Amino acid sequence: MEKIQSIASYTKEIFDKNLHSQIVNKHLDVEAWFRKQWIKYPAPFYSSIDLRNSGYKIAPVDTNLFPAGFNNLDSGLDSLYLSAIQHALEKQSIEIERVLIISENHTRNKFYNESIKKLESLINRAGFETQTCMLGDVENVNIINKKLSNDKNVLSYKSFVPDIIILNNDLSSGVPKILKGIKQSVLPDLNLGWTNRSKTVHFKYYSDIVYNFSRVFDLDAWLLEPLFRNCGEIDFKTKQGEECIIYHASKLFELIQEKYDKYEIEEEPYIMIKADSGTYGMGIMKISNIDDIVKINRKQRTRMVKTKGGNLLDSVILQEGIYSNEKLMLPNDVVEPVIYAFGSNLVGGFYRIHQDKNNSENLNSPGMRFKPIPFSDVCISPDNNQPIYADVNKFYIYGVVARLAILAAAKELYNVEI
Amino acid sequence: MEKIQSIASYTKEIFDKNLHSQIVNKHLDVEAWFRKQWIKYPAPFYSSIDLRNSGYKIAPVDTNLFPAGFNNLDSGLDSLYLSAIQHALEKQSIEIERVLIISENHTRNKFYNESIKKLESLINRAGFETQTCMLGDVENVNIINKKLSNDKNVLSYKSFVPDIIILNNDLSSGVPKILKGIKQSVLPDLNLGWTNRSKTVHFKYYSDIVYNFSRVFDLDAWLLEPLFRNCGEIDFKTKQGEECIIYHASKLFELIQEKYDKYEIEEEPYIMIKADSGTYGMGIMKISNIDDIVKINRKQRTRMVKTKGGNLLDSVILQEGIYSNEKLMLPNDVVEPVIYAFGSNLVGGFYRIHQDKNNSENLNSPGMRFKPIPFSDVCISPDNNQPIYADVNKFYIYGVVARLAILAAAKELYNVEI
Repeated sequence: MEKIQSIASYTKEIFDKNLHSQIVNKHLDVEAWFRKQWIKYPAPFYSSIDLRNSGYKIAPVDTNLFPAGFNNLDSGLDSLYLSAIQHALEKQSIEIERVLIISENHTRNKFYNESIKKLESLINRAGFETQTCMLGDVENVNIINKKLSNDKNVLSYKSFVPDIIILNNDLSSGVPKILKGIKQSVLPDLNLGWTNRSKTVHFKYYSDIVYNFSRVFDLDAWLLEPLFRNCGEIDFKTKQGEECIIYHASKLFELIQEKYDKYEIEEEPYIMIKADSGTYGMGIMKISNIDDIVKINRKQRTRMVKTKGGNLLDSVILQEGIYSNEKLMLPNDVVEPVIYAFGSNLVGGFYRIHQDKNNSENLNSPGMRFKPIPFSDVCISPDNNQPIYADVNKFYIYGVVARLAILAAAKELYNVEI
Repeated sequence: MEKIQSIASYTKEIFDKNLHSQIVNKHLDVEAWFRKQWIKYPAPFYSSIDLRNSGYKIAPVDTNLFPAGFNNLDSGLDSLYLSAIQHALEKQSIEIERVLIISENHTRNKFYNESIKKLESLINRAGFETQTCMLGDVENVNIINKKLSNDKNVLSYKSFVPDIIILNNDLSSGVPKILKGIKQSVLPDLNLGWTNRSKTVHFKYYSDIVYNFSRVFDLDAWLLEPLFRNCGEIDFKTKQGEECIIYHASKLFELIQEKYDKYEIEEEPYIMIKADSGTYGMGIMKISNIDDIVKINRKQRTRMVKTKGGNLLDSVILQEGIYSNEKLMLPNDVVEPVIYAFGSNLVGGFYRIHQDKNNSENLNSPGMRFKPIPFSDVCISPDNNQPIYADVNKFYIYGVVARLAILAAAKELYNVEI
C-alpha cells in the first residue's frame, strides 16, 4: 500500500486547543464512555461514515448502513476485518453457520461488484458459508429474483437456507414482501432501509449524542457536528416548499456565521441541501447564500427531483457545509475520510479523493479516487507523545466521530426494533 | 517486517492426504465447531502455544497461560491485538476501566521487560488505564512488593485500584496471600498458576478434545497430538522413580514406533522428559532409547532436579518427541511456530529459530531468535485454491491446533473455577 506522506497543517488553533487535546488527553475516559454506550445501544452490523475535516471541526456528513467500498480497504489488514465480522455475528447468535448477502441490483457497476465480492469473501473467510444474491425489482413482485423463495416464513436462495441475512441493499424502493415476516434475522433491521430512515432523524440522534459527549468532555458540540434543518413536502419542480427552504437556510446561515465569528473563521458559510432519504451522492445541492435558492435553474431542479431508484424527492435536509481542508500530496486534491466498522469495531477506511472539486463540494461523484488510510494501530489509540496533528491522533478523532455517528445509528435501530 | 521467503516442502504424503486436506476442505465446519466449544468453555484471557511440525504431524508441546514474547509479534498488526484485547476484557465485564498487570520478578531480563512493556502498551491503547507491578518474593511475605496492598479484600497498587488483575506471573512458587480472596477478578484464574497446573492434566484434556475433533473430522488423532505418559514422585538425585520412567518410556517408544511403522516414517522415535509443572524450557531432557535413562549423568541429574524458581522437580511428563522438519531460509536453522491468542482470538505468532540445535531438540534455550509469522489474514482462513503446503493453509492448521490447545486450557479453567 502506498503510504500517505504528508497532510497539510491546520491553520486554526481551536483544533488543537479544544477538540484534539480534550479528546486525545482523555482518551481512556472516551473509550470507557463508548463501552457503556454499546451495552445500551448495540451497534448495527456494519456501517461506513463520511467525515469532513475543516481543520477547525471534524464531523460526519453521512452514515451509511449498507456500505460499499470494501474493495478500497487496506488489504493488509484482512485479519482485523475477519475478527470484527466474527464478533459482530457472534453477538447475534453463536448458531450462525450460513449467511446470505442480499446485494443491490448493480449488475454493471464494476466497483460495486468488487465490493460485494470482497464482503462475501471476508464473511466466508471469517468462517461462515456465504452466498450472495440480488433482490430483483422490489416494486414488481414478478421481477423479484426467482431463485429466492419464502417457504413458511423461511427465506431460501436456491437450496441454500441461511441462518441470517445481511442486507447490502438499502431498500430505497421499500421492503419487499418476500422479506417480510421471515424467521431469520436480517442485518441491519429491515426498518433501517432508506424507505423508513431519514437523515434528519439520524442527525437529531447524532446531535443529542454529541451534546452529551461534549458535556462530559467539556467541548463545544459544534466542533463535532454539522448544524441542520429539515423541510418536508418539497417539490423542486413546482417550487412548492421554497419558502420553507429559504426560512431555514437563513436561520442556518446565521447560526453558522455566529460560530465562524466566535472562532474567527474567515471562510464563507455554505449549506448542502440533500434528499432526506437516500444515498449515493444523488439529490445533493450546494448553496452559498439565499439567492442561490431562488436562482436554482431547471437542470438543477430536474436533478434534485429524482434520487436513486427514481424515487420522488419530497423531504430535504439542509446541512451545514463543512470545508474539507485536509490535503494529501497533490495540491489540487480535495479529500474526505470514510471510516468503516463492523458493529462497534472500527476496521479502517480510506480517503475519498477528487481533483476536480473544491473544498466545499461533494466528493462522492464520478472521478473520485480512493486511498486506504493506514490503520495499523490508529483509530483506537492516540499517542500523547506525538503532536496533536500526527496521523495517529487525527485518525483517533476520526474514529471517535465515526463511533458517535454509529451510536446515533444504534439509537435509530433501538427505536425501530420490536 | 522481513518476509519469510521459503519453507521447505514436506516429504510425507500423509500430511497432504489426511491432516491438511481434511481440515482445509472442511474449514467452515471446523470454525462452526469451535464457535460452539467457546460457549461451553470460555477461553482463558491469553495464551501462547508452542507447536512442532514434523511434516507428517503438527502438535502442541506446551501451552503457556502467562505468555511472554509480545515484543516478538508483528508490529504491523497492532490493531488486531487491540481489538482482541478489547473483546477478551469485554467478556469479563463492561465495567473494566483500570487494569493491573502483575509481572514476573525478572528485573534483569531485557527481553521479558520488553514483552511486558509491549503488553502494557497494548492494553493501554485498547482503552484501559494500565499499570504494571512485580509481585516480589512470594515465599517470604516480608519481601512482597510493599506498594501492593490488600485493604478489605480490595487489592491496590500505590493509589491505583484496578478493576481487574492480569497475571503475567506463573505463580511457580504458589499463590501469595495478598492475592487470596480479593474482590477483583484475576486473569487467568489464580488456580491456573504452575503450583496447581500440570502438563499431564493439560494434555489429558487435549487428548480428549483431539479425540472428539478427530472423530468429527475423520482424522487420526495422533496427527495432532504428542503421546504422553506421567510419572510422579521422581527424584533424579537418588534415582527414585527410575523404574517408572523406564516402564513408561518403553511403552511410549512402542506406541510411537507403531505409528511410525503405519505411516512408513523412517525417523527414530524419541521422548522428551519434562517437569510436569513449570515452563521456560527448564527441566527438559531428551532420550532416544531406554539406555539413555540409566546413563543420565550427574550434570543432567542436577539440571533436572531444579526448575524455575528453584522448586524441586517431583513429577514428570514423558512426551513423544516431535521432529521439527520445518525450514526457513538458512539450511541450518531449526524452527518451531509459537501462536498467540487473547481469549479464543488468534492474533499471530512467530517462529522460534535456533541454528545450533537439531530437529529433535528443545529450541527454547539461549541463542534462540524470533521471526514474526505473517498473519495478515492467515490462521483463520485457509484457501482451497492454493496448494496444501501454502503458508495460508499451513498457518490455518497451526491456528486450529493452537485453538485445540487453548480449548484444553479452557477446560482446565472450567474445572478449577468456583
